[in-house]
Amino acid sequence: MIALFDSGIGGLTVLKPVLKALPEYDYLYLGDSGRSPYGGRSPEVIKRFAEEAVEYLFGRGVTLIIFACNTASAAALRHVQQKYLKGAKEKDRKILGVLIPVAEEVAKTTKTGRVGVVGTKATVESKSYDTEIHKLNPKIKVYSQSCPLLVPFIEEGWHEKPEAKSILRKYLKPLKSCNVDALILGCTHYPMMHKQFQEFMGKKVKVFDTGSIVAEKLKDYLHRHPEIESKLSKAGSRSQKPQTGSAKSAASSVPHGKRLFLTTDDPKKFQSFAEKYLGMKIKTPEKISL
Amino acid sequence: MIALFDSGIGGLTVLKPVLKALPEYDYLYLGDSGRSPYGGRSPEVIKRFAEEAVEYLFGRGVTLIIFACNTASAAALRHVQQKYLKGAKEKDRKILGVLIPVAEEVAKTTKTGRVGVVGTKATVESKSYDTEIHKLNPKIKVYSQSCPLLVPFIEEGWHEKPEAKSILRKYLKPLKSCNVDALILGCTHYPMMHKQFQEFMGKKVKVFDTGSIVAEKLKDYLHRHPEIESKLSKAGSRSQKPQTGSAKSAASSVPHGKRLFLTTDDPKKFQSFAEKYLGMKIKTPEKISL
Repeated sequence: MIALFDSGIGGLTVLKPVLKALPEYDYLYLGDSGRSPYGGRSPEVIKRFAEEAVEYLFGRGVTLIIFACNTASAAALRHVQQKYLKGAKEKDRKILGVLIPVAEEVAKTTKTGRVGVVGTKATVESKSYDTEIHKLNPKIKVYSQSCPLLVPFIEEGWHEKPEAKSILRKYLKPLKSCNVDALILGCTHYPMMHKQFQEFMGKKVKVFDTGSIVAEKLKDYLHRHPEIESKLSKAGSRSQKPQTGSAKSAASSVPHGKRLFLTTDDPKKFQSFAEKYLGMKIKTPEKISL
Repeated sequence: MIALFDSGIGGLTVLKPVLKALPEYDYLYLGDSGRSPYGGRSPEVIKRFAEEAVEYLFGRGVTLIIFACNTASAAALRHVQQKYLKGAKEKDRKILGVLIPVAEEVAKTTKTGRVGVVGTKATVESKSYDTEIHKLNPKIKVYSQSCPLLVPFIEEGWHEKPEAKSILRKYLKPLKSCNVDALILGCTHYPMMHKQFQEFMGKKVKVFDTGSIVAEKLKDYLHRHPEIESKLSKAGSRSQKPQTGSAKSAASSVPHGKRLFLTTDDPKKFQSFAEKYLGMKIKTPEKISL
C-alpha cells in the first residue's frame, strides 16, 4: 500500500486529492498527533521522529512512503532517504516528499520570477524550498515567511475568526510588498485557510496548495515507474484482475482500495476530524506508539 | 536534588519563585520541549510521557520530583504515584504536583465560594481542580474554561498583541458572568499573561499563579518532612556544614545550590528563553531523549 506520513492531521489535505486522483490503491495514513506540531521543533528532533515513522512503516511492509508534511519533508526527507535507501533493498523502497513537486510546478508557473513561501519555522529555516526552486531556476527570487500561529488556530477550528485573519495579515504584509506572483502554502494545514490567503494576496497572485500538486505528480510518477506501481496493492488486484465490467466498478468507474489510519494519539478524535474533512466514513484508526 | 518536570518552558514560572524561596537546594529542571505542548493530548499519551520522565529522573538518582506542569499533574500525577511509589523504595521517593497546593490556597481564600479555573483542554477535561477543591469544601462552585490558543501565543512571544487580548476576552467572558471571586491560572504558561487576566477579570477577582503558591507550600513541606529534606543535596552540604558566616553567604545571605537544565529539544533555544525569563545565566542545558 501507499503510506502517507504526517505530524498529525495536516496531511489529510494531501490524502484527500490523492484519494480522488488515484482511488484504486490501498492507503495507510500515519499521523503522529501525539507529538504534533513538528513546525517549531529543531531539525534533529524532526529527523528522529521521521526515522521512527519510517522504521515503523517499513516494519509493516510498506514500500512507498510519502512525507505528506512540509516540515518533515523540509527537515528530514534527505536524511531518511540517505539512511534507509542505501542498502540492498533500495530498489524496493521509496520515500517521497512534497517539496519537489510543488517547487517544479511553481518554477514553471511564475512569470515575474518572484515567489513567496509560507510555512512553519522549521520549513522556512531549512530553506529547502529555496534550494529546490533554485535547482530548477537560480534566477527566481524566493521570499519566505513563517506563520507559527496558524496551525494552532486551524487545529482549534478558529481560523475563520477575525483574530486569525488579523494575524494572517501581519504575517503576509512583508510578502505582499515583495510583489510575488506565486505563493506556496508550504504547510499542509494552510489549505484550510486557502480562501483567506487568496483574499489577502489578491487575484494577481496564484496560491499553490501542496495536496493537488502532489496528487497529480504521484499519478505521473507511478505511470513512469511501473516497477514500483506493480508492487502496490490495490482494489481489483485481490479478487479479479483487471477490475472492469463489474457492477461495482460500473457504478463508481474505479473501485476503491483500502484506507487504513494510524495515530499516536486519541483515535476517536482523529476519526472525527478525518471523517469531517474527508467527507467519508473511515474505520476507527489504530492507536500506535512510535 | 529537587527535580521539576514540565512539558517545556512553562514550568519555569514555578522554578523562578521556588529558587527565590529555597535557593540553597540543588535543582534539576526537565522540559520535554521536543513533545510540547501536552495540553491538547489525550490522558493516555500524557501518562506515557510522564512515566518516561519519571523513569528517567529516578534513573538519575532524583528522589523528589515536582510536576511543575498543570496538565501533567492533572492527567498523570496519581497514575505515576500509584505506579512508582508502591514498592519498597516508596519512602525514599516522592512525586508532588501543583494542583493540591493551589486548591488548598484558593479554598481558603474564596469568600463567595465561586471559583474559576483556566487551563489546557487536558487539565479542564480531567476535572482535577474540581475534585481537589471539592475534597476541601464540597460547597465551592468551580467554573472551568480551557484556553488552548494562549500557550502558542505565549510561546511565540505574541501574548501582548491585540489579537491575544481579544482571544483572552472570548475565553474569559463566560467565566466573568459566573461572578467568581478567585481565578486559578491552571497552566504554568499563563502567569506570563497575569496582567491581562487581572485586567479583564477586574479588581474584585483574585488571580492565583501556580508558582508562588507551590514555592511556599514546598518550603512548608520540607520543613514538615525532615526525613525528605535531609536527603536533598544543597549548597553548604558539600563543603561545609552548616553554611554560615562565610564571605559568600554573608554577601547573598543564603548560598545557592546547583541548577541543572535538561531538554528534549534544542538546548540553545531553551537556554535563551530560560536566561531571559529567570534573569540569570545558566549552564547550557543537556539535550536528552525520553
